[in-house]
Amino acid sequence: MTTITEPSVTADETVATDVADLGPALLAAFEGSHHDRRAAGRALWPAQGALRDPAMSHLDAREWTLNRLRELGGAGFGHSIVPPDATTEDTQIQSLVDFETISYGDLSVAIKSGVQHGLFGGAIAGLGNADQHERFLTGALDLSILGCFAMTERGHGSDVASLETTINYDAEAGEFVVDSPRASATKTYIGNAAAHGHMAAVFGQLVVAGENHGVHCILVPIRDADGAPAAGVTIGDNGHKGGLLGVDNGTLSFDHVRVGRDMLLDRFGSVDAEGHYVSAIDNPNRRFFSMLGALVRGRICIGAGAAIAARRALSIATRYADSRRQFRHAAGEPESPLLDYLAHQRKLLPAIARAYALGFAQNDLISAYGTVSSNPNHDPRDQRALETMAAGMKAMNTEFANGTIQTCREACGGVGYMSENQLTQLRSDVDVFATFEGDNTVLLQLVAKGVLTNYREVWGGLDRLGLVQASARMVGSSVIERTGAGLLAERLVAAARRKGDAAAFYDRGWHAWMFEERERHSIDSLARRMRAADRDSFDAVNAMQDHVLFVARAHMERVVLDSFIAGIAACPSGAAKQTLEELCTLFALSSLEADAGWFLSHNRMSDARAKALRKQINQVCRDLRPRAIALVEGLGVPAEWLGAAMLTADA
Amino acid sequence: MTTITEPSVTADETVATDVADLGPALLAAFEGSHHDRRAAGRALWPAQGALRDPAMSHLDAREWTLNRLRELGGAGFGHSIVPPDATTEDTQIQSLVDFETISYGDLSVAIKSGVQHGLFGGAIAGLGNADQHERFLTGALDLSILGCFAMTERGHGSDVASLETTINYDAEAGEFVVDSPRASATKTYIGNAAAHGHMAAVFGQLVVAGENHGVHCILVPIRDADGAPAAGVTIGDNGHKGGLLGVDNGTLSFDHVRVGRDMLLDRFGSVDAEGHYVSAIDNPNRRFFSMLGALVRGRICIGAGAAIAARRALSIATRYADSRRQFRHAAGEPESPLLDYLAHQRKLLPAIARAYALGFAQNDLISAYGTVSSNPNHDPRDQRALETMAAGMKAMNTEFANGTIQTCREACGGVGYMSENQLTQLRSDVDVFATFEGDNTVLLQLVAKGVLTNYREVWGGLDRLGLVQASARMVGSSVIERTGAGLLAERLVAAARRKGDAAAFYDRGWHAWMFEERERHSIDSLARRMRAADRDSFDAVNAMQDHVLFVARAHMERVVLDSFIAGIAACPSGAAKQTLEELCTLFALSSLEADAGWFLSHNRMSDARAKALRKQINQVCRDLRPRAIALVEGLGVPAEWLGAAMLTADA
Repeated sequence: MTTITEPSVTADETVATDVADLGPALLAAFEGSHHDRRAAGRALWPAQGALRDPAMSHLDAREWTLNRLRELGGAGFGHSIVPPDATTEDTQIQSLVDFETISYGDLSVAIKSGVQHGLFGGAIAGLGNADQHERFLTGALDLSILGCFAMTERGHGSDVASLETTINYDAEAGEFVVDSPRASATKTYIGNAAAHGHMAAVFGQLVVAGENHGVHCILVPIRDADGAPAAGVTIGDNGHKGGLLGVDNGTLSFDHVRVGRDMLLDRFGSVDAEGHYVSAIDNPNRRFFSMLGALVRGRICIGAGAAIAARRALSIATRYADSRRQFRHAAGEPESPLLDYLAHQRKLLPAIARAYALGFAQNDLISAYGTVSSNPNHDPRDQRALETMAAGMKAMNTEFANGTIQTCREACGGVGYMSENQLTQLRSDVDVFATFEGDNTVLLQLVAKGVLTNYREVWGGLDRLGLVQASARMVGSSVIERTGAGLLAERLVAAARRKGDAAAFYDRGWHAWMFEERERHSIDSLARRMRAADRDSFDAVNAMQDHVLFVARAHMERVVLDSFIAGIAACPSGAAKQTLEELCTLFALSSLEADAGWFLSHNRMSDARAKALRKQINQVCRDLRPRAIALVEGLGVPAEWLGAAMLTADA
Repeated sequence: MTTITEPSVTADETVATDVADLGPALLAAFEGSHHDRRAAGRALWPAQGALRDPAMSHLDAREWTLNRLRELGGAGFGHSIVPPDATTEDTQIQSLVDFETISYGDLSVAIKSGVQHGLFGGAIAGLGNADQHERFLTGALDLSILGCFAMTERGHGSDVASLETTINYDAEAGEFVVDSPRASATKTYIGNAAAHGHMAAVFGQLVVAGENHGVHCILVPIRDADGAPAAGVTIGDNGHKGGLLGVDNGTLSFDHVRVGRDMLLDRFGSVDAEGHYVSAIDNPNRRFFSMLGALVRGRICIGAGAAIAARRALSIATRYADSRRQFRHAAGEPESPLLDYLAHQRKLLPAIARAYALGFAQNDLISAYGTVSSNPNHDPRDQRALETMAAGMKAMNTEFANGTIQTCREACGGVGYMSENQLTQLRSDVDVFATFEGDNTVLLQLVAKGVLTNYREVWGGLDRLGLVQASARMVGSSVIERTGAGLLAERLVAAARRKGDAAAFYDRGWHAWMFEERERHSIDSLARRMRAADRDSFDAVNAMQDHVLFVARAHMERVVLDSFIAGIAACPSGAAKQTLEELCTLFALSSLEADAGWFLSHNRMSDARAKALRKQINQVCRDLRPRAIALVEGLGVPAEWLGAAMLTADA
């Protein structure tokens, strides 16, 4: 077992010898077991022309984006979506890393690739049969069939089960009739709909012989060869958006549009030649969630894309703050670089630490996705754990990215507002990441639900009391959660418990213990409240919603810290490992500081300790400041890809 | 004296009788003594055509904005910038309210008006002589002379004293030579420079006979009648920006450009016919701050504009959340409106409460500006108090607006990302408000400096100890701070102190007491640290920077609460007053919750009380929810001005 060493507060001395190698060493550790694959992706990626002129109109941006997507296709991107029988850990992980690599450039391109390959291609691959794979999947991947993922409707976004589009089977004709019975059934915000798509994977209620079998997905041609809307299909344009101007979001509605029986993506539910509904999954609820399987990859990608956008912004703002000088403190002395100011350090360095933390957790999520999604016989508990973590990491990453990019923009002052410096573009593109592919508030509730379900399974219902000595990690009962990250942290916690309040500020075990206490206590108390409440009453359940969100965040913070700890353990000794220890401390202390009110009022921290948090955080910031450039090098965005004019201009 | 009543937690019953009148009554109270003037502004303002097509290119947007500015001029806006001898309380306040009213529409128009009237016109009015007023001020106000306010340089933004542009007096020719000696002296982000400006008020170091007299302002023609750059003037275009696309920001540099002696705006420092520098202000530091006088109005306007943008966003998101339904909780029941969910209430209602709080404080700031700036013999302490409050309110309002508009965008989900719903446009325009007209981090440090200066004056240096019983309000020693808002709060605090921890959650005195404790204790401890530190050491001063920012925020929160309390006291009894009491409680409890860690670790709050904060906030949210539409009506943005397509569309 790797020992966690206590970082020295005078770390710059000890690492000064190899600071030039620090960036690459940090990157290798940060990317962990996916480092080689990611490096290969970066080597393949055509960086030239990756950034769009921000003054381009949204109509021109759409064409630019499509062209860029074709260029990326030529370079080998977007081909790793494969049918279940060809799925391996390798293909699954590659599809995620492809998306990550594309995210180093214009995010409209990444999202359009996500729509085309991940969602449209993913629906065909994941929900279709062999015949459909043959007829449509190649075209989806080589862009000869541009397609839409038509799930969201005007009336229902987060509540997918309530979609109003109908897919009626006409037994006589042997055809499906796709219909939007009212305005609220109109599909909206559909990428590829407004300009480029020729086909759509349409989600709607499948009705066979008058019986509703719930949400299914069917392929519907939406434009003819000339690009005109197909008969019965009405196409609208969502027009100008807050960002992602290169994605042609639009609306689709269907007036009794007929498609052949072979267009239903029928892996989980089909209609046979006799007009009978057939499904291998009896439980309609489970069937529904199988239909939504493509969303898991989407959520992992969105979280990853947001994380990379945040890393780009942090790289830009940190490099600027390292060189930009302002205010002279004594005559004859040079002005001070912005990053020498404590207030500036506190804006950027804890965010960098959190970027690392989230990155380590994302690595584990990617690995888990590879394992679970390539194994057709996976444990349903693993699937649930994966979905929970994907939902949670999507919410954590996108919330982080939005806040951090904004902080970076402000940290650069007026020059940060100029589009040529990329920050406002990143910010406006990432904005919607907070609400699409699952609204963050809804996703965090899914996380809490997943956690409570595990809790119930482990502890036999919500009625059990007296869990004070149990580890929150026991709640993570799936194979995914029980291997790797959690075990190491658990041992550290045990040691810290023995020391109690005497544990040092830099003691990783103390951090892990505090994170666990926050999670465990909040789950316990939520479970108790739920047990006492009338769970059929909207008011009673609603009154707990903030508690539910707190549980979700506390859980995710703990999961992220566990991954960070395990990631450091896997890093060879040296300056990089030492630096990661300090970053982990900064992440942990910042999280504790943000929730100091909770720790104090729940008697998990003494007044003196809480008061000292601020000082300790400042100290770690001061220690890390001389290594700031290496820290952002370790985040993996090559300086020459940043594209911020201010980093190359004089003055 | 008005009694502060304890709001009932079952308030909806008591106010149900006149809920239809609640919005207008709230608005009257919210706008306080400026209500009639604001209502008159709204009646005058041409709402038609106030919002720009978001898909417009930035080049077209600039022309649209200029046209709209001319239209507003025709409607009577932008004429209230007057020279000192014509200045009255009325003209001063009117100039601020004009800006507020314009802010109901496209913010590029508001900012272009701010550049043209407030800054360019304001510099001529405030820094020029009678002859210059006659020659240039009318043209600045009627737009026949479009002008720039050329202060910021590439090398120096926040540090205005270090500007590198030189204004050399050539005694032989009787002319000034304006020069940009190096690239970092280039003026940048200058509104009206890229396309429309014909003249610039240029700030630079005034050098007379080899002696530098510090920063002064001079008028320089930058374009000829045909729009070509004047000889020696190089004009650049900052190009596309993160927002405010209608403002033509650009760069200006000067190659020994000669202008007549009568072009120096010489109210505070002039060069006489014999070539001698003359100033009525001996102290170069005081002279410098006199030169920057125009910035005070600018900061008040920017804070006001941000506040109105936040009110517009809150009005849009609240109206949407009140009608948009999602998720059915029992078969046969209708889906629930978003605003019925606790998580949604917690996103919007505390923000609405804070919008009210900041609005009341802004009212007091406006009044103070009217009083001080119209009185040529005002006490310098009043001037300092005004500048401190203007800086603080600019930072508070703009930080609030950026966070709140983003929250509102996310609260509307995907539809909130569509430009036709205004939220992303508001967000991208307000973004830069955080860093222009004074970077918020720098401004908060000015606030703390102002507070500490008062502290020193009141308590005779930083050496005094034992201030435990002194009121933080004693620190506010100026006429502005000693009248009005603070006194009422002080009496409430005295009563709450007697009750101690037995004070009720809804006890306004307890809130005011806690806010005061946070401010006073943090000032005391900062003063002690400063006394102990080597104030010539960058490291020693830098180590306190986060403490300095905490003091500034604690001070501003207290000032804002005081204004809220006084504003309620001035409101006639009834449903509006009752509702304001609840909003004030929500504001106060939210602020206490955000700093719970501080209150607990400094023994100002018991664990039980801190834990109960969350529940109390939830309860106030639940109480206020049925009145949500009236709450946003009270924020003063007529529904028909919101321009959000989703509020009028079906589905």
